[in-house]
Amino acid sequence: MKKSEKAPIPLKYQQYVQQMQKIADIRFANAVLQWDQETYLPAKGAGVRGRQIATLAETAHALFSEDWFGDLLQELSSTDRLDENQRKNVTLSLEDYIKNKKYKPQFVRKLNEQVNITFHAWLDARKKNDFRVWEKELDHLISLKKEESYILGFEKHPYDAHLNEFDKGITVEFLDENFARLLPELKRVQLAVQGKQDGPKPLLKGIFDGEEQWRLGLTILKKMGFDFNAGRLDRSEHPFTISFHTQDVRITTRINEQDPTQLIWTCIHEGGHALYEQGLPAESYGLPLGEACSFSIHESQSRFWENGIGRSRAFCHFLFPLLKNCFPDSLQRWNEDILYRAVNWIQPSLIRTEADEITYHYHVAVRYELEKKLMNNELKTKDIPILWADYYKDYLGLSIPDDNNGCLQDVHWAHGSLGYFPTYSLGSLYGVQLLNQYSATYPNWEKDIANGDFSGPHKWLNREVYIYGKKFTSLELCNISTCKPLQMSQFITYLENKFLIKL
Amino acid sequence: MKKSEKAPIPLKYQQYVQQMQKIADIRFANAVLQWDQETYLPAKGAGVRGRQIATLAETAHALFSEDWFGDLLQELSSTDRLDENQRKNVTLSLEDYIKNKKYKPQFVRKLNEQVNITFHAWLDARKKNDFRVWEKELDHLISLKKEESYILGFEKHPYDAHLNEFDKGITVEFLDENFARLLPELKRVQLAVQGKQDGPKPLLKGIFDGEEQWRLGLTILKKMGFDFNAGRLDRSEHPFTISFHTQDVRITTRINEQDPTQLIWTCIHEGGHALYEQGLPAESYGLPLGEACSFSIHESQSRFWENGIGRSRAFCHFLFPLLKNCFPDSLQRWNEDILYRAVNWIQPSLIRTEADEITYHYHVAVRYELEKKLMNNELKTKDIPILWADYYKDYLGLSIPDDNNGCLQDVHWAHGSLGYFPTYSLGSLYGVQLLNQYSATYPNWEKDIANGDFSGPHKWLNREVYIYGKKFTSLELCNISTCKPLQMSQFITYLENKFLIKL
Repeated sequence: MKKSEKAPIPLKYQQYVQQMQKIADIRFANAVLQWDQETYLPAKGAGVRGRQIATLAETAHALFSEDWFGDLLQELSSTDRLDENQRKNVTLSLEDYIKNKKYKPQFVRKLNEQVNITFHAWLDARKKNDFRVWEKELDHLISLKKEESYILGFEKHPYDAHLNEFDKGITVEFLDENFARLLPELKRVQLAVQGKQDGPKPLLKGIFDGEEQWRLGLTILKKMGFDFNAGRLDRSEHPFTISFHTQDVRITTRINEQDPTQLIWTCIHEGGHALYEQGLPAESYGLPLGEACSFSIHESQSRFWENGIGRSRAFCHFLFPLLKNCFPDSLQRWNEDILYRAVNWIQPSLIRTEADEITYHYHVAVRYELEKKLMNNELKTKDIPILWADYYKDYLGLSIPDDNNGCLQDVHWAHGSLGYFPTYSLGSLYGVQLLNQYSATYPNWEKDIANGDFSGPHKWLNREVYIYGKKFTSLELCNISTCKPLQMSQFITYLENKFLIKL
Repeated sequence: MKKSEKAPIPLKYQQYVQQMQKIADIRFANAVLQWDQETYLPAKGAGVRGRQIATLAETAHALFSEDWFGDLLQELSSTDRLDENQRKNVTLSLEDYIKNKKYKPQFVRKLNEQVNITFHAWLDARKKNDFRVWEKELDHLISLKKEESYILGFEKHPYDAHLNEFDKGITVEFLDENFARLLPELKRVQLAVQGKQDGPKPLLKGIFDGEEQWRLGLTILKKMGFDFNAGRLDRSEHPFTISFHTQDVRITTRINEQDPTQLIWTCIHEGGHALYEQGLPAESYGLPLGEACSFSIHESQSRFWENGIGRSRAFCHFLFPLLKNCFPDSLQRWNEDILYRAVNWIQPSLIRTEADEITYHYHVAVRYELEKKLMNNELKTKDIPILWADYYKDYLGLSIPDDNNGCLQDVHWAHGSLGYFPTYSLGSLYGVQLLNQYSATYPNWEKDIANGDFSGPHKWLNREVYIYGKKFTSLELCNISTCKPLQMSQFITYLENKFLIKL
């Protein structure tokens, strides 16, 4: 009797898995279309590709919103006959299901349409280097994002609803407190480092053959442990990582023939994301436990590699001979010390994506403050450029020469991605804390890196981060992987050690 | 009153179009996944890609099989308030719908599974060069194909049901009659040509740089009118053309560094297919009138270009200087006459895909006879190699040395594509008849080709073939475009003119 009572639940869990994997098939198929769009799509193909992508998104969404599936999730979530991981999957899927159901189809359509319009208005504004060209559509989109705050719900601040989308549990309260502690410390370290730096920044001169750069990128990715039988490297205008499942993870990069360090550190950054995707539990394909923890933790992986490993002295020791071998003429007067200084040069600048490890966080803080005030009606869309300029003056000491070098530089708002930027800073913090933990476990890691053996951090991250998928929130995972809560102090100490003591 | 009576129909037709375009989005998305599978997919990606492709196919199929959609099609097909093209779309969709409904889901699953197993058994058999490795699974698949004949229905011969799938209205009766007339004529011309040929066939010697070949392929495709803003050329193991809509049509080819003519004539062949796809009516996206007429007519387009244009003396006149410019050393002793003779060399051979314009049809006839007898229980699967050998002896005068050079050479049966091969011969006949009609309209066309201007045939085919989509059957289209029914005699006269009079 007992057995037959129990029988339906495993079957029903299997139904849940099947539906989730079907949805995953469609979502990942859509990811293939998006990858193709950024890499190989012929110019005239964009129009119909847009509708094909929209149809797949709607189809996946419709499958996830079916009433019977909600009933199934409810039933599974109230049984005690699932194991811990099964329960976690069901709980997370049900949360998503309930959230999805909050949206009226008309709102979703309006939001998607407005994103599309706002994105194209942004492209146009970029061309004309004029925020005013974008203002009206951005304002409409921000209105919808405010509406969305109330659809999703929040406890204290409407911005919380959006922050929660990118990193569960993160709030204005949490970020206000952390930025308030971070920014003065950053300023202190930044000024001290700049006082120590012998200017000007070492600059590479010459033309660096694209194919040589490409081979170098491939070499480094292979050394990092990126599995080229389960992934690819291609070119696109903006570098990105995209996954179609753990056995097919693709990176893109771009070639700048004036500066090979761009391709190299882009490969390392995207490689960090990609190793995470390749390392997620393949058996949980389509389920929450097969997905990455959060945007913050994803970013921690790219920062761990890009800054923690890639901008270490050990890595420069490893890289310099390779680089010199590829470009002997241009690197005649360089050595690994100069390379190390060049890739760790601290200098406030106007463009976030080009910023160094310290001043980067001012850029994030500016966007955080603006998004928060927009969501709270403290800031009107039309006043974005003014406040942007004020903050850049205040945080970075810089004047904004034009909109393209100011508030038109990022695509995020044009996509309606408000709440995304803070994950970049949180990712850096988590990245450093993971590096510290790894370093405490394997104090000699730098020797391996210097010798071109990067398998240590890869194995460690696999064990401490990748395998958990979405089982924990960022903060929980941090506790598990580093045995400590998120500690701002670790990041500051790391910067001090690196830039004031060791450099 | 009258107006409100009429109102629902246009709206309902719009519903029909929307559903068809949604289905097209998913099918074409799946085509992107298939293209990627053949071009850029990393090795380990194949497994999950297979299930993603299967899910998209099932999703599209489910959308097309919804009951409300059948009701809608029935209603639209019985109204007189649609225009001619709308009526044609609805009629063809309803035919498809009814056909689809004949299949039980269990049968479709069984067939798909058996195709998958049979394909892998074929790969294995190819590796071992042994038909016996394939026999059992092929036999299972053929049994299912026989079952399918009765599901689809036929009037006289079970094979008719399958022939109809690739070219509507084509029957055993029609093909028996045509092959019976074609084969003796072919034999007569073949023997006469071989008597005239000064052997041996001119062969190119040397290594032909792949990148030079690639550029030549691109040049020729551009000259043919292939729009690279609405398509691409990539590499794959087996060349193919695939379309995601008229503005994104992709070709693949392969590089043989021993023989550049392979890449060149593959590009022309696939280019012929691709021009057709780029020229289909874009406004009928997702509807029958936006699709190609049939497999035969599709093949007529590749043959028109590959043989009619590409193997003309005029084309060799155009190509030779380009070829010599790319590979001056290897072509030192060649001239355009030698090139013309080389690409028009008539010689029976074992492999269909390498056959010349005349003996090619023996290869098709062998397969046609075998498929017919398999469907009619006149031939047992285990006896395929024996009958294959008999026919090759009879038609081509050749002995079969091993299975890879015999009945294991084509993938078609492994895919369950019985009924496909005859479209290759029909395509050649249609292709020649189209060329004759074009030639009658523009008697000086060869001058343009010799000067590298290929816009004439492209424009003409656009007007006479592309724009009709699937509005007519192959035979109807032939009547419209060439003002005559399909005439076997035109093909024979073409061969005589080309190989016995002009050469």
